[in-house]
Amino acid sequence: MDADPPDLDCFRLVDEPYYTPVGNEIALFEAAYRAQVPLMLKGPTGCGKTRFVEHMAWRLQRPLITIACHEDMTAADLVGRYLLDAQGTVWRDGPLTQAVRGGAICYLDEIVEARQDTTVVIHPLTDERRVLPLDKRNEVVAAPSGFFLVISYNPGYQSAVKDLKESTKQRFAAIDFTYAAAAREADIVAREAGIDAGLAEKLVRIAAASRNLGHRALEEGASTRTLIRAGKLIARGIGAAEACDMAIVAPLTDDADTRGALRSVVAACL
Amino acid sequence: MDADPPDLDCFRLVDEPYYTPVGNEIALFEAAYRAQVPLMLKGPTGCGKTRFVEHMAWRLQRPLITIACHEDMTAADLVGRYLLDAQGTVWRDGPLTQAVRGGAICYLDEIVEARQDTTVVIHPLTDERRVLPLDKRNEVVAAPSGFFLVISYNPGYQSAVKDLKESTKQRFAAIDFTYAAAAREADIVAREAGIDAGLAEKLVRIAAASRNLGHRALEEGASTRTLIRAGKLIARGIGAAEACDMAIVAPLTDDADTRGALRSVVAACL
Amino acid sequence: MDADPPDLDCFRLVDEPYYTPVGNEIALFEAAYRAQVPLMLKGPTGCGKTRFVEHMAWRLQRPLITIACHEDMTAADLVGRYLLDAQGTVWRDGPLTQAVRGGAICYLDEIVEARQDTTVVIHPLTDERRVLPLDKRNEVVAAPSGFFLVISYNPGYQSAVKDLKESTKQRFAAIDFTYAAAAREADIVAREAGIDAGLAEKLVRIAAASRNLGHRALEEGASTRTLIRAGKLIARGIGAAEACDMAIVAPLTDDADTRGALRSVVAACL
Amino acid sequence: MDADPPDLDCFRLVDEPYYTPVGNEIALFEAAYRAQVPLMLKGPTGCGKTRFVEHMAWRLQRPLITIACHEDMTAADLVGRYLLDAQGTVWRDGPLTQAVRGGAICYLDEIVEARQDTTVVIHPLTDERRVLPLDKRNEVVAAPSGFFLVISYNPGYQSAVKDLKESTKQRFAAIDFTYAAAAREADIVAREAGIDAGLAEKLVRIAAASRNLGHRALEEGASTRTLIRAGKLIARGIGAAEACDMAIVAPLTDDADTRGALRSVVAACL
Amino acid sequence: MDADPPDLDCFRLVDEPYYTPVGNEIALFEAAYRAQVPLMLKGPTGCGKTRFVEHMAWRLQRPLITIACHEDMTAADLVGRYLLDAQGTVWRDGPLTQAVRGGAICYLDEIVEARQDTTVVIHPLTDERRVLPLDKRNEVVAAPSGFFLVISYNPGYQSAVKDLKESTKQRFAAIDFTYAAAAREADIVAREAGIDAGLAEKLVRIAAASRNLGHRALEEGASTRTLIRAGKLIARGIGAAEACDMAIVAPLTDDADTRGALRSVVAACL
Amino acid sequence: MDADPPDLDCFRLVDEPYYTPVGNEIALFEAAYRAQVPLMLKGPTGCGKTRFVEHMAWRLQRPLITIACHEDMTAADLVGRYLLDAQGTVWRDGPLTQAVRGGAICYLDEIVEARQDTTVVIHPLTDERRVLPLDKRNEVVAAPSGFFLVISYNPGYQSAVKDLKESTKQRFAAIDFTYAAAAREADIVAREAGIDAGLAEKLVRIAAASRNLGHRALEEGASTRTLIRAGKLIARGIGAAEACDMAIVAPLTDDADTRGALRSVVAACL
Repeated sequence: MDADPPDLDCFRLVDEPYYTPVGNEIALFEAAYRAQVPLMLKGPTGCGKTRFVEHMAWRLQRPLITIACHEDMTAADLVGRYLLDAQGTVWRDGPLTQAVRGGAICYLDEIVEARQDTTVVIHPLTDERRVLPLDKRNEVVAAPSGFFLVISYNPGYQSAVKDLKESTKQRFAAIDFTYAAAAREADIVAREAGIDAGLAEKLVRIAAASRNLGHRALEEGASTRTLIRAGKLIARGIGAAEACDMAIVAPLTDDADTRGALRSVVAACL
Repeated sequence: MDADPPDLDCFRLVDEPYYTPVGNEIALFEAAYRAQVPLMLKGPTGCGKTRFVEHMAWRLQRPLITIACHEDMTAADLVGRYLLDAQGTVWRDGPLTQAVRGGAICYLDEIVEARQDTTVVIHPLTDERRVLPLDKRNEVVAAPSGFFLVISYNPGYQSAVKDLKESTKQRFAAIDFTYAAAAREADIVAREAGIDAGLAEKLVRIAAASRNLGHRALEEGASTRTLIRAGKLIARGIGAAEACDMAIVAPLTDDADTRGALRSVVAACL
Repeated sequence: MDADPPDLDCFRLVDEPYYTPVGNEIALFEAAYRAQVPLMLKGPTGCGKTRFVEHMAWRLQRPLITIACHEDMTAADLVGRYLLDAQGTVWRDGPLTQAVRGGAICYLDEIVEARQDTTVVIHPLTDERRVLPLDKRNEVVAAPSGFFLVISYNPGYQSAVKDLKESTKQRFAAIDFTYAAAAREADIVAREAGIDAGLAEKLVRIAAASRNLGHRALEEGASTRTLIRAGKLIARGIGAAEACDMAIVAPLTDDADTRGALRSVVAACL
Repeated sequence: MDADPPDLDCFRLVDEPYYTPVGNEIALFEAAYRAQVPLMLKGPTGCGKTRFVEHMAWRLQRPLITIACHEDMTAADLVGRYLLDAQGTVWRDGPLTQAVRGGAICYLDEIVEARQDTTVVIHPLTDERRVLPLDKRNEVVAAPSGFFLVISYNPGYQSAVKDLKESTKQRFAAIDFTYAAAAREADIVAREAGIDAGLAEKLVRIAAASRNLGHRALEEGASTRTLIRAGKLIARGIGAAEACDMAIVAPLTDDADTRGALRSVVAACL
Repeated sequence: MDADPPDLDCFRLVDEPYYTPVGNEIALFEAAYRAQVPLMLKGPTGCGKTRFVEHMAWRLQRPLITIACHEDMTAADLVGRYLLDAQGTVWRDGPLTQAVRGGAICYLDEIVEARQDTTVVIHPLTDERRVLPLDKRNEVVAAPSGFFLVISYNPGYQSAVKDLKESTKQRFAAIDFTYAAAAREADIVAREAGIDAGLAEKLVRIAAASRNLGHRALEEGASTRTLIRAGKLIARGIGAAEACDMAIVAPLTDDADTRGALRSVVAACL
Repeated sequence: MDADPPDLDCFRLVDEPYYTPVGNEIALFEAAYRAQVPLMLKGPTGCGKTRFVEHMAWRLQRPLITIACHEDMTAADLVGRYLLDAQGTVWRDGPLTQAVRGGAICYLDEIVEARQDTTVVIHPLTDERRVLPLDKRNEVVAAPSGFFLVISYNPGYQSAVKDLKESTKQRFAAIDFTYAAAAREADIVAREAGIDAGLAEKLVRIAAASRNLGHRALEEGASTRTLIRAGKLIARGIGAAEACDMAIVAPLTDDADTRGALRSVVAACL
């Protein structure tokens, strides 16, 4: 294993991030990491993809560099650029280049939001070459064995306009994520919000109902994150119904009918 | 509580901003602040969201940094950028970074107007990480406990084109705002415009009627702000009808029929 | 009243700009100025809005900074920017910042032409805060009592694409402008073009007829300005019909039928 | 009359540009110049607008600065900008600012091609103020009496997308141009191409026929310029039919039918 | 043969890249290279075009510079640009210019993704001139005999919006690529993934079935690359069905029906 | 004749470029050059326009500066720009300015691809003024008599969106180009590819058939250039059918039916 450059130490996870596996995703991630097959995590908002990557980085003892992709992000934002200094122009590595040099796990969150030049930039890192060409420096950085590329992708979002190119998709092995099963989700909510198991189970029932409302009423159902936040508010003394309204119902929709349906669900479950 | 950097003192509110609560929004805000659950304030133009945030900043003794979002605002406008100086390039924190470092309340007004890179930038601040990565500086700023993020959102505006991403919405608990009840609104108008209670009540009746005209006639009804301004003009000696025309009717619409309807309302209420 | 910085002296009007009021617009402007209620002047091209603002600036003894808005104008064009100097970057106030610091009247002409970031920049100046945040300088400039914001708006132009946001409109009291009544308009034309009253009345009759042709034939009728220019050309020896053709008919339209109609009007009125 | 800055001497016309008037356009231009009424010259391609302006600049003894407008031209291209120099940033006047300072005639050719910020920049120069505000320098340049603004406009081109704003149009008096009458056009062609009168008359007949083909066949008919060029080629020994093909038929259209029609016209006229 | 500049040594392939020819593509490439006829490789994602170019670069002993094209790539990204240094601006060759100067093989991957200025930049290199004009340096670089230009093109992708201009297409001779025949593909998969021949044949049968599903179900079938990766995961201990799901089924589609069909194929073949 | 600046020597053609005239285009070019009438060469891809210009530059003993136009080319790319140097900003002439100063022939290839600011920039060079205004330098460069402007234009390409403005077209005399007659084309192919006359004739017959397939099957038929390249490959030992497939059929189309038709043509002609 390569020695990491010292300045990636701030990207190392000291404490184990809490994560209880759904299936054998830990084994799949480790096999992909060992086989150097880049990985795509597919699933809805707030179902634990980010937490899983953090857990695996801790488990594999790798620094983790996370990059939230957006449509104004350019290749230079990933790779680096020349900046003007008192001594003239100075090259500054971008976060992807840092991850490659330092043998870190690089996590590109919601990659489909990025412009094409971003996705093309990672191509040479995702085939047998495992290199990152820095055209502007005339340098080709070879990835050490510790480097690993993970991207996330929310299939519920994709439209014809914004989707990964076929030649990008086929460069990744994929693991499907979804919300945890009810018992495990209640566990997570109780632990993270600091509430008792009974209340957590009720919140999970609310979320399950919201996820069954269907695409026409809600773009997505309530995520585990919203349950945790409702729990935290209840733990601070807010009434359960009011906390659910504030953390679950109101953020999800402004449509009066859908709000009514959600509030009936909340009333029935609490 | 963290010590604030001295240069945020200019963002502290010295005098209590006048605010009379509608419901238990003060308790909800405080619970969210203590639980570190970011907050979204939903409601129409000029119904008091900004004033409420100012009041809470004063009550919680936090500096308040307000940022009016617009479609040309970039992530760098929030986070900071390198500027060229006599000594070469120098980093300058943007207002969001200042708020994070200084443990301030950061209020992003009308966030939906901003481009996606802005909304994505706040993601790591709104989940359990509570950090702001400054990619261009290779720095990750951890938010002190005093930092709190509040955004506003006007549901009446949103179109399919401009809306928050689902993964952004679910990162916030939400409080609904609407115009104050008639008596409280009259109170506010009388106090802020310096007019007597009777006149204020008449103005509030005009506003209520305008809000009932429906979306087809007016995009939004008269806000509390327009009532205060009509009152101020009357207090400066302008006739009541003329002041209402100038501060309420003329700004709201150029359509002759709707103006006629509004003027009948004004005549009937005064 | 605050002392003005000396460098706004070049924006003070020394001679009284000629203006004869239509109604009580002078009183309305003064009341709005004293009550610190920002003002929107609504009306067609060339009906005297700019001249009215100049007159009021002279009457209120305030410097006047006029900014013609256009779709390429950015917030930085209003607020200011850093420029590179021999000593590194230097901040340079934009015209809006100058107006705020110096307590001037700032007139944003045809504000609807500007991009959204411009209109959002003025929001904190138009509510109770009356401040201009200079994000890039981490400075908040408080407006002295002499500062006053006036914008103009041509309702005939507005389309769905380009209109002010509701939250901007409701920040202004509005005064409607239209062409002056015939007698007063003839007065203005005679005085500004240096022609006798009889000829000025004829020109005004031509304009009135052009304004009645309706939107299908002409986007707008002949403005007072075109009458003054026709008068000036006549005063320089050009024949009346030819001067009207040059200053009124030819600029308004290239459509042969509409030109024919306008020329009949000219022939009938002269 | 103001003294011109020496560096506009290169914009003075030493020799009289050949121009034979069609009507009283010379008197109209002079009256507009003396009355300081900005001028718009309307007419098709190559009918002599540019030559007329050159002639008038020579006649009025004014330097002439010509600017060909295009859709990528910015306000800064007209007004000036800061450039980085060894001593830091230095302001450099644009051609419009030079023209204003130097009291020149400024000719904006095909202004409708420019972006809106260009057209708005000239507004304060075209009303009673006659000033050019240099916002970036905090300077307002007053135009000396010798400054005069002329724009050209081709009505055949205009579409709904690209047209002058009403508030711009009404700032100019307009003179219509069209192709010269046959005898005068033949005169011009003979003189400029160096061919005899008989041949020039034949070329003019060809052009007249092309101009009658109608918009469906040709966007515009053959301009005087194409006739002069056909004449020049004939004077260099090219056969008359071949020269007409090369200078008139081939440039105008690639449509086989229209070419056939034009060639019949050429054959019939020669 | 020209001497290569030393700094292209890092672009030389030391070990023979594994490649088993399908037909006589090696002879065709060599003939085109000797005849200096630029080459276009046509074919679907992951069928071995990049590997073939690497093999030929090794075989012909030429450095290989690969450039992944994307829609934000500018001509300057290929050709070079001036950078600001302590000594002022310094020119830096782009990768295409380096390839020309050094007599390398330059491989423009997915050229159709690039903007038109990129494709136009290569025109003078692809006709008899074989030069690269560096307009900004006023330099014309003549390509040495060792320089060779290869582009790739995926016909399955092209739409009316994004296609090569006719005048670009005709500058290249083309070789069609498709997936290798079953036996050869199994050979490649076994070798690269480190699995036995029987398993490799099964994986190839899965891919063949996926390629027959048709465009409506899948934009493209499983590439050889996905088979290799499934093999690698199996070699790391992941179950065969699970590895196929992760490396083949999940990356290709999110559609439940198509996934079902693919999984039946996987079950039938294993 | 003006003395050329020494640094255009690299743009002089030392050896006569091979060119056999179709008609009297050499005389027409010379007459236009002597009469200073700018020239437009019209015709399809690869029919010899560029070679003709090279031949004429050699014949007229003028340096030749060729510029391939594209939609990202700006006026500054043609005219020049200020660059930052150790001594501050330095002006650098663009290729068009160099051509004007040096009295070169300037060839703008496929001008219709360029943006409007490019085409407008050449206007003052193409009428009687023959000057190039460098607005940013406040300099007007007069073209010496040796300067000549030639543009190319492919009528097959033009759409309503991308076409020259009428006021640009009429500034040029035009010469139509098309593929050479069969005998002459065979001559060219034999000479340039180094093959015997019989084979060249066969290739020409293939091209002729492809040009008759019509627009629906092929956007353009096979150019002379593709024939030469097929010939070169045959001369390097590739079989004739395979060489035609590689140099003619495969580059032209991916449509299976059209490929079939073309291959039948190839089989029939060889």
